[in-house]
Amino acid sequence: MMTASTSPSAPFAGMMAAYMMSTPTLNDIHEAQDRIAGHAHRTPVFTSRSLNEQAGASLFFKCENLQRVGAFKFRGATNAVRSLADEDASKGVATHSSGNHAQALALAARERGIPAYIVMPQNAPAVKRAAVAGYGGEIILCESTLAARESTLSEVVRETGATFIHPYEHPMVIAGQGTAAVELLEQAPGLDMVITPVGGGGLLAGTAIAVKGLAPSIRVLAAEPAGADDAHRSLRDGQLHPSVDPQTICDGLLTSVGEIAFAVMQEHVERVVLVEDDAVVAAMRLIWERMKLVIEPSAAVPLAAILGDDLDVSGMRIGVILSGGNVDLGALPF
Amino acid sequence: MMTASTSPSAPFAGMMAAYMMSTPTLNDIHEAQDRIAGHAHRTPVFTSRSLNEQAGASLFFKCENLQRVGAFKFRGATNAVRSLADEDASKGVATHSSGNHAQALALAARERGIPAYIVMPQNAPAVKRAAVAGYGGEIILCESTLAARESTLSEVVRETGATFIHPYEHPMVIAGQGTAAVELLEQAPGLDMVITPVGGGGLLAGTAIAVKGLAPSIRVLAAEPAGADDAHRSLRDGQLHPSVDPQTICDGLLTSVGEIAFAVMQEHVERVVLVEDDAVVAAMRLIWERMKLVIEPSAAVPLAAILGDDLDVSGMRIGVILSGGNVDLGALPF
Repeated sequence: MMTASTSPSAPFAGMMAAYMMSTPTLNDIHEAQDRIAGHAHRTPVFTSRSLNEQAGASLFFKCENLQRVGAFKFRGATNAVRSLADEDASKGVATHSSGNHAQALALAARERGIPAYIVMPQNAPAVKRAAVAGYGGEIILCESTLAARESTLSEVVRETGATFIHPYEHPMVIAGQGTAAVELLEQAPGLDMVITPVGGGGLLAGTAIAVKGLAPSIRVLAAEPAGADDAHRSLRDGQLHPSVDPQTICDGLLTSVGEIAFAVMQEHVERVVLVEDDAVVAAMRLIWERMKLVIEPSAAVPLAAILGDDLDVSGMRIGVILSGGNVDLGALPF
Repeated sequence: MMTASTSPSAPFAGMMAAYMMSTPTLNDIHEAQDRIAGHAHRTPVFTSRSLNEQAGASLFFKCENLQRVGAFKFRGATNAVRSLADEDASKGVATHSSGNHAQALALAARERGIPAYIVMPQNAPAVKRAAVAGYGGEIILCESTLAARESTLSEVVRETGATFIHPYEHPMVIAGQGTAAVELLEQAPGLDMVITPVGGGGLLAGTAIAVKGLAPSIRVLAAEPAGADDAHRSLRDGQLHPSVDPQTICDGLLTSVGEIAFAVMQEHVERVVLVEDDAVVAAMRLIWERMKLVIEPSAAVPLAAILGDDLDVSGMRIGVILSGGNVDLGALPF
């Protein structure tokens, strides 16, 4: 583990300016497919008769919980890491995250043989630190404030020359996440609708670009916890609202939607359906019990929307991206 | 729900005499494949890099937790139900069970459009009764003694003309269970060993007949909880010992090995490896965490044996049958 001070340095936003506003295309997603092939799994699509009966629709679950590191994040991280020129790559990659992106970036970097510097708050759970370290990530601890995380990350980048890989506000990350939807459309032909959860918006944006590029008639929706409804409010008002003090069991969906994702949402996403946490827990339990799949709460949000009264899905064929399966078995909500 | 008295009637053993001692063949298993096609799933085989590293071997998990009703039992029940002549079938099938066989038989019968009479003890958990009823089974409650279960079942059979389908001591049930191994050998070529859990022995016997018939050089082993070690003792001593007061978390492995299964074991099964419950829970947790699969404790027994010190598996290619995934999420052992 290396250490770094938390003294202020170049502002975080400045580091991102170079690529920040570039929206990936379907072609970027096809290139990502080639880049991640042999590294990321082509995950299976599962169905469940009893969930179909309950929904009154045909549901096709794209099992990114069975992806490497247990989440779709490995697609975007691998694409970003493998997009780097050799000279840049040799200096490594860096990010701040205590979640699935941190593990994904650590493993993607290890597979390219380069270092990954992961800035994590000191109060991150030991199990998450152990997971990142297990994938070969070099952990730099900092105070648990956003300012400390950003300044620590800036310092790490300055000292090492590593390339910052943002968890979602990065075109190659978004393009990588979009590969799941390309596979889903091949595996489940004739869909009427695709639904993903939305947190930072990387999965949603990649999915929307892929789906609308390949089959514009397929509707793209997002599902979001009511206690972290920034994507819903942003799409409704036509302007980006940050996530303020989000309260939800969905620990993967606490972040604010990014600017790239918001632009894609405005163009391609029909609606953000809100669901309460108790509906999320019930949907999660259904998938565990009926499909025998371990998923994290964030991954259950789309099914909660489908089973709720707010969205009419009767008779439709719906693709659902089960985003991840990293959950603390010692602290389950049921 | 129908009711039945528990007065003594024809002895239980007598009902079984007609088919009891007939051992199924590889040909019976191939016929079972045709019979269950389109009803039972051809379940996937999954692998895990981290579990392979931990085991020092290549493990191929046959996911019968993803089978219909969440367990391999649906194969045997379907084969037995579909083996019946129309006239017999029209009177229905019957069994006594509060576990996966009860659910499997109920669904297999419903799919043939015939009744299934399931004798269950009055103290069976409500969730298990609901599961059987949910698959259309007609539940007959009785006292929670073996004598009451047997006499109640006899009475049901006498009154309805239904055919008794034993959970494991039945050649068509064993042949059906053997279809999982046939698929496994196709899906994972070049195996050195196949391991199954053993309770009544239906899965083990079907697996052994399939594997030894198709590829005699593949070793067939069983894994058993140390607190329910009747199969181990029986194979060791060359005579069938009953299971007396078994104590294990593996609620699917409490029954005594049947006579057909014991004969097959003596011919084909190299060894029954014993594992303690704490090793079972640890193995179960590994499969949940690393493979994101919900399995029941009984299904984790083979991995516990592989990871234990008692069995040398280094460098081997091993097929593991994950027997089922029906577990009470409200009462997990971790």
